[in-house]
Amino acid sequence: MTADRKAGEQFGSVFPHLITQDLPNLVAIKDADFSDVDAVFCCLPHGTTQEIIKGLPQQLKIVDLSADFRLRNINEYAEWYGHAHRAPELQEEAVYGLTEVLRDEIRNARLVANPGCYPTSIQLPLVPLIKAKLIKLSNIIIDAKSGVTGAGRGAKEANLYTEIAEGIHAYGIKGHRHVPEVEQGLSEAAESKVTISFTPNLICMKRGMQSTMFVEMAPGVTVSDLYQHLKSTYEGEEFVKLLNGSNVPHTRHVVGSNYCFMNVFEDRIPGRAIIISVIDNLVKGASGQAVQNLNLMMGLPENMGLQYQPLFP
Amino acid sequence: MTADRKAGEQFGSVFPHLITQDLPNLVAIKDADFSDVDAVFCCLPHGTTQEIIKGLPQQLKIVDLSADFRLRNINEYAEWYGHAHRAPELQEEAVYGLTEVLRDEIRNARLVANPGCYPTSIQLPLVPLIKAKLIKLSNIIIDAKSGVTGAGRGAKEANLYTEIAEGIHAYGIKGHRHVPEVEQGLSEAAESKVTISFTPNLICMKRGMQSTMFVEMAPGVTVSDLYQHLKSTYEGEEFVKLLNGSNVPHTRHVVGSNYCFMNVFEDRIPGRAIIISVIDNLVKGASGQAVQNLNLMMGLPENMGLQYQPLFP
Amino acid sequence: MTADRKAGEQFGSVFPHLITQDLPNLVAIKDADFSDVDAVFCCLPHGTTQEIIKGLPQQLKIVDLSADFRLRNINEYAEWYGHAHRAPELQEEAVYGLTEVLRDEIRNARLVANPGCYPTSIQLPLVPLIKAKLIKLSNIIIDAKSGVTGAGRGAKEANLYTEIAEGIHAYGIKGHRHVPEVEQGLSEAAESKVTISFTPNLICMKRGMQSTMFVEMAPGVTVSDLYQHLKSTYEGEEFVKLLNGSNVPHTRHVVGSNYCFMNVFEDRIPGRAIIISVIDNLVKGASGQAVQNLNLMMGLPENMGLQYQPLFP
Amino acid sequence: MTADRKAGEQFGSVFPHLITQDLPNLVAIKDADFSDVDAVFCCLPHGTTQEIIKGLPQQLKIVDLSADFRLRNINEYAEWYGHAHRAPELQEEAVYGLTEVLRDEIRNARLVANPGCYPTSIQLPLVPLIKAKLIKLSNIIIDAKSGVTGAGRGAKEANLYTEIAEGIHAYGIKGHRHVPEVEQGLSEAAESKVTISFTPNLICMKRGMQSTMFVEMAPGVTVSDLYQHLKSTYEGEEFVKLLNGSNVPHTRHVVGSNYCFMNVFEDRIPGRAIIISVIDNLVKGASGQAVQNLNLMMGLPENMGLQYQPLFP
Repeated sequence: MTADRKAGEQFGSVFPHLITQDLPNLVAIKDADFSDVDAVFCCLPHGTTQEIIKGLPQQLKIVDLSADFRLRNINEYAEWYGHAHRAPELQEEAVYGLTEVLRDEIRNARLVANPGCYPTSIQLPLVPLIKAKLIKLSNIIIDAKSGVTGAGRGAKEANLYTEIAEGIHAYGIKGHRHVPEVEQGLSEAAESKVTISFTPNLICMKRGMQSTMFVEMAPGVTVSDLYQHLKSTYEGEEFVKLLNGSNVPHTRHVVGSNYCFMNVFEDRIPGRAIIISVIDNLVKGASGQAVQNLNLMMGLPENMGLQYQPLFP
Repeated sequence: MTADRKAGEQFGSVFPHLITQDLPNLVAIKDADFSDVDAVFCCLPHGTTQEIIKGLPQQLKIVDLSADFRLRNINEYAEWYGHAHRAPELQEEAVYGLTEVLRDEIRNARLVANPGCYPTSIQLPLVPLIKAKLIKLSNIIIDAKSGVTGAGRGAKEANLYTEIAEGIHAYGIKGHRHVPEVEQGLSEAAESKVTISFTPNLICMKRGMQSTMFVEMAPGVTVSDLYQHLKSTYEGEEFVKLLNGSNVPHTRHVVGSNYCFMNVFEDRIPGRAIIISVIDNLVKGASGQAVQNLNLMMGLPENMGLQYQPLFP
Repeated sequence: MTADRKAGEQFGSVFPHLITQDLPNLVAIKDADFSDVDAVFCCLPHGTTQEIIKGLPQQLKIVDLSADFRLRNINEYAEWYGHAHRAPELQEEAVYGLTEVLRDEIRNARLVANPGCYPTSIQLPLVPLIKAKLIKLSNIIIDAKSGVTGAGRGAKEANLYTEIAEGIHAYGIKGHRHVPEVEQGLSEAAESKVTISFTPNLICMKRGMQSTMFVEMAPGVTVSDLYQHLKSTYEGEEFVKLLNGSNVPHTRHVVGSNYCFMNVFEDRIPGRAIIISVIDNLVKGASGQAVQNLNLMMGLPENMGLQYQPLFP
Repeated sequence: MTADRKAGEQFGSVFPHLITQDLPNLVAIKDADFSDVDAVFCCLPHGTTQEIIKGLPQQLKIVDLSADFRLRNINEYAEWYGHAHRAPELQEEAVYGLTEVLRDEIRNARLVANPGCYPTSIQLPLVPLIKAKLIKLSNIIIDAKSGVTGAGRGAKEANLYTEIAEGIHAYGIKGHRHVPEVEQGLSEAAESKVTISFTPNLICMKRGMQSTMFVEMAPGVTVSDLYQHLKSTYEGEEFVKLLNGSNVPHTRHVVGSNYCFMNVFEDRIPGRAIIISVIDNLVKGASGQAVQNLNLMMGLPENMGLQYQPLFP
């Protein structure tokens, strides 16, 4: 386990809830001994990862949780992140790690770009519906809500308890960096360019993410068609669950687990549908999906280490 | 001050935060002496209010905070509330109390139907934009978020701390009773029938409400046109504030006050705009607007008793 | 899995976070088939358990999570619970399930009375210190703080989100029913009657419990003596952890796990010490310790099903 | 209104909840024009205030909300704050601003040291009881709980929402800087040196403070004697309220107001009593008491600007 600022510290002093575990101290990356390592999770800030992964031994399997290898188009990367991509050859090799959608590619990958939390919660329902041409590509409107862990652990005034508790606000309207990642996935599913409306909101909760997607159905398609298609798509999946009837997904029913719960609802406006999905942004939206991907890459059971249930209440 | 279940109790035992105030005990409505009363706020459950108001002395001015007199069309009332309206003649007399929009009518009213919280937060921005024909009437999509006080103080499992804290969920999709109230207001502004998409969400906060409205602009209209129209509409208003530049309204910046903050944003999809408004659902969305209305009805300064600032943090 | 009010319902409709699990529907106790059952967890309200356990087949091993069999003295039971004990012969058989303290007795028990949450968090540090005569028996002052799950899932106005969020209050001062349970444990350790000062507080959090114990040390004893004794007592224990140095236990570092973290601190007043322990009231304070106990009773590894880590943040 | 880091900014950009108010921009202290100013509130970090107040015009009345002038003994100041006091002559002039206890001195003061939040909540009940010799001076044990605003608005990892929500922890055991301030007040009341046990806790709430005080009563004294003495002491006070009967003070019933609620309870241990007081740490524990003090110093009604009620829920 490596660290930058906190290299040399005990793991339990950085994460006191793990103080009971007999874990090695954190070391700087440059001091890490990779000779006995098969695979790494790379959890570095966006932008710094490219060069570090370039420098890692070739035989390592890598799941990268940053955004560095998520955008296939390096011009788009440069546009959203403000600098040229520093490892374009690795970008070509990287496989996008939306497990249920790209399982076969992930299985054979050496480098997996683990999806962002918003993109996971949005693409899991929308990609199959778009592929099946059940919804229109125009006017896909997404109002998403995230817990504060999405912002990381950096000490910023805006994320203090006193600024966050008991309130909600939108942020990054139009400019959130998860937009190109979602549009890439939906466009590939559609085989044509998709532009979305995306409004993220910060909610006074630690974990959890809800994406509400307002869509127009293709002519003649009904909400029941959407439901049936999602049902058959995810029927055999352990971690993606379409709820029954009119049950509404609650974030608190997946927090602490790798599950994605979703459902489809009629809209009052004829021809429209409302789709809601929820995940734990830190698990299915980050570390859980990363484990799921590495399990695939290593030939292990996909659910290894992931069978814990949500913590409710 | 009257009560039903709690008649006979001290006010401070029902609301211990007001124990320092020298207030009379609660009495049953039937025991109330109206001889020295000029006006009443009626805060009874939906459905029970109609008959009680019928029985009140004619000279009283009344602001009714229930939904009983909000829908001008008693057939629509019957459809949404499951029984025929019990005071149709009073319904004809009632004036809808969206203060900034219907100030003159309210000033002369005897019975004001105080708006619901969602309808207040939605109509304040949308009514002027619709009247000015700046937005299309089709595909008005609203994703709204409310604090838990919106559900009242009834003891329900679903509203326990343990069921609500640290999470979010949608509810009443398609069927929320505030829908006909909003559609009535928007249709009147449009002079034609408007059908909205409305998805309310329950957030783990006590007070506060955010409505996010996704709209299509009329041909040739820009976000700047929407902004300028709202600016000129609310320029002289004390309680409705259009934020500057790209400032995003936060619920926590209005909680405890009668303010509505709003702003307009460009959407990534050309021709669309995103409008966000926030209020304290218990103040501008209920009691504060009720006081504002009664002030008008009594010829008092409109802001009397309402000049307290938001409580932040 | 049995239920009373909710018999006949699907498990996932009562606990939607477990909807992914293939579980049988809830049945009424009278309809349960015990022929193939080895052991039961009994999670019924205080007072109702006695008669039900009397009626269960004799060969069942039972962990009872209610308070019904915790007080060895049935007169004391009658005094605190307001009615004569209904199964005094079972009371004699019952073993108090404070695992780390009474492991051998639990191993051979048929009926275990699982401890309350406050008593667990208090007795784990105090019992060994009292047995070793390191602290005085007079003036043991305990200020304890509990999350709201301690109050169960009953729909009460006092436990609504709006009544609980963003605040703290004491309750049950002098009269909390966990008092006789704690005093029983401390008195047995002391071999003389101990009377405690106990003030519980309800905190705006779902899970978690902190007990702060203000004690006078025996003449000549130092804080370091207390620390060393707790260290040697719990050195080999998986679930009880004495923190290093001046590290302060936080409830959020044990929530979701079966751990108890504790530490000892000097007081400004010479001769006094402050002891702080934290647990998850629903795990080590209830279901986790129950599983730990049943594991012992069944000859299984004590930590089976309990090796999940705290969920932080 | 002056600022350091934020000089030049609009007030509404620092405190967006006040954006509706027509307020001047923030200026650096060195650019402030004091020619037309009668009085100032000084809200600077501890340690920096001394020199700045030395430099202010002599005719100004000053309420200082820092800790700089609270300790009469400058040696004690040096010991707790790590440097010699930089304005010892001003320290001699400063009056400690616990309004209800030192009203006459405050009325005639030029410089008032506004009390800390913990000291306010502790001294209001204990000072009169000690003066009347109703409680013993030994073994005064205080377990106090504070909302997070007590830590200010500085961007620290420890105060992030994700580190604070849904939990509690003690901090500063033995070493909190409010200890000498409390001991000074109690010692003066006792006319002899008092040493307290003081354990503060950080609670997952924004505002609010509860102090629980465990005391030994003087021989022959009863809880009823304590109650009656507090009742007669605070009977005429607007902002200090002794609750009736066994009503327990809740922080949420004073938040947003200048009130202190308190009550006295019997302990299970004979001869002991438990006293609980609650305040809003930002109001009676800071800015509210500061206004109260300045009102006195200026000859204004003491409650001017302070008559708002608690915001509940």
